[in-house]
Amino acid sequence: MTDAGALVDGVLGADRGAIARLLTLVEQGGPEAVAAVARLYPESGKAHVVGMTGAPGAGKSTLTNRLIGRIRATGDRVGVLAIDPSSPFTGGAILGDRVRMQDHAVDPGVFIRSMATRGHLGGLALAAPQALRVLDAAGIPWLILETVGVGQVEVEVAATADTVVVVLNPGWGDGVQANKAGILEIADVFVVNKADRDGLRQTVADLEGMLALAGAGRDGSWRPPIVETVASRGEGTDELWSAILGHRDWLATDDHAHDRRTARIAAELRAIVVARLVAGSGVAYDGPEFDALVDRIEARTLDPYAAADELLA
Amino acid sequence: MTDAGALVDGVLGADRGAIARLLTLVEQGGPEAVAAVARLYPESGKAHVVGMTGAPGAGKSTLTNRLIGRIRATGDRVGVLAIDPSSPFTGGAILGDRVRMQDHAVDPGVFIRSMATRGHLGGLALAAPQALRVLDAAGIPWLILETVGVGQVEVEVAATADTVVVVLNPGWGDGVQANKAGILEIADVFVVNKADRDGLRQTVADLEGMLALAGAGRDGSWRPPIVETVASRGEGTDELWSAILGHRDWLATDDHAHDRRTARIAAELRAIVVARLVAGSGVAYDGPEFDALVDRIEARTLDPYAAADELLA
Repeated sequence: MTDAGALVDGVLGADRGAIARLLTLVEQGGPEAVAAVARLYPESGKAHVVGMTGAPGAGKSTLTNRLIGRIRATGDRVGVLAIDPSSPFTGGAILGDRVRMQDHAVDPGVFIRSMATRGHLGGLALAAPQALRVLDAAGIPWLILETVGVGQVEVEVAATADTVVVVLNPGWGDGVQANKAGILEIADVFVVNKADRDGLRQTVADLEGMLALAGAGRDGSWRPPIVETVASRGEGTDELWSAILGHRDWLATDDHAHDRRTARIAAELRAIVVARLVAGSGVAYDGPEFDALVDRIEARTLDPYAAADELLA
Repeated sequence: MTDAGALVDGVLGADRGAIARLLTLVEQGGPEAVAAVARLYPESGKAHVVGMTGAPGAGKSTLTNRLIGRIRATGDRVGVLAIDPSSPFTGGAILGDRVRMQDHAVDPGVFIRSMATRGHLGGLALAAPQALRVLDAAGIPWLILETVGVGQVEVEVAATADTVVVVLNPGWGDGVQANKAGILEIADVFVVNKADRDGLRQTVADLEGMLALAGAGRDGSWRPPIVETVASRGEGTDELWSAILGHRDWLATDDHAHDRRTARIAAELRAIVVARLVAGSGVAYDGPEFDALVDRIEARTLDPYAAADELLA
């Protein structure tokens, strides 16, 4: 039996060491990880993935901690994958700011892992679904995909979850960056955390108005519930859990889950193809050479198609 | 002098026939169009592009017609490019539903063109900026980029405009599709058209709330104005024009326009590279073979990386 084979068997047996080692391989990218996850793939697809996103400081980690506790109270295992494109950490380290989840660090029913990108072809957008498959194949029924910030990659990754929870605060008005990243659009559940602060009613009313504008809940579409929490005191955790279960039930009706999965799979398949074509071509898809061409295009000394020719030459 | 050379000279001389013929070449794709637009590229970059998007029936064409009249009153020429991915029409046809713009059909200072995609590498997302460059190089200072629907491609195209106008109606609550496409996120100016209908105050309040939530206008960011119009009677046209000019002025301050242009150029350059790599590889990036692989991935009889191998084989 190869080492990869032992790893795969270990993951299928829910061995924590095997899960951690395979996640490190996935993070690093490379053919061993692809081969191992391919063998796990038929055993995945059973977990429900909850994306947890929002601006830094909104209280995502505290809320995740509460949610872990709520899920554990049902007896189910839970996995947490924290996506941090900027993290200098690697290889299974639990980040310092994960300390709020340390309540559960010694619970064998909880698996917490931070993930940066370490040379994975296509970056976190491709690494995250592979990492989730590992946890999924290990039989963990609830996976929380938490983003650290609201950068474009993090929002793209969060949007692939089955249920996307967007965490705001009362009077939340520093969301320029978040708005640009499209965070309000992807919510299946809104949480207004720190609900004991001033401005709660107005923030909830603003969200209600936005949902009305967007026609949420009409024609059989999902209307994202707005849950008020004070995660630091554990208030609202049951309501958040109910909202997540409600969305999971809605997905199971009609073809909602199927449509969402199909779109997600198509996007991932295209991203893999593009990553392989780009890697195979050796083209500079970003970096100084790419940026220099963008500058020349902007200065109109080079047109975009000639620039593409230079990149592809 | 080649025929392409004559076309280029004709466009630079603002000859309507030459503009129309080159736009047809751009729509069809192919190396002649790329070569011709490359020669025009140094002369482009002067026009201001106004994107006009919103759900079908919101009144975009009527509003565009009013805006054409307002711009013409300044003496400036104006070009309109109507993006319609689903149109069966081709080659310079003015669509039937363009009839609302026929007020200006005989005005030599107005150039109106509908555009579908006819085999252009990368589709409308790549064809539209090329078409705008043709009109831009012809010295037309105002270009209106109107989308017919709110599909993903149309919203992506509209988002590349210098000033994006999103057209809503009072009580607008059928926007599920629009919301999914991210239309609310990309607005630089909101228009509530048919402002004489019930529900105006609520719709404006909902928009105000959403902008407050998103922190619009904070930290030097742009706060999209909300303009009320009754385009069928010409009401609010001046206010819309002022809002567009205000946004153009804001873009000119600090590095806002530069940042936006840089991001747009980088995205276009990557899209050209991907389109060429995909075309060069012969990979099925959509269609029945692609869809069949997605089905197998969803059925978990094939993993996404093995599917990519099949596509790339």
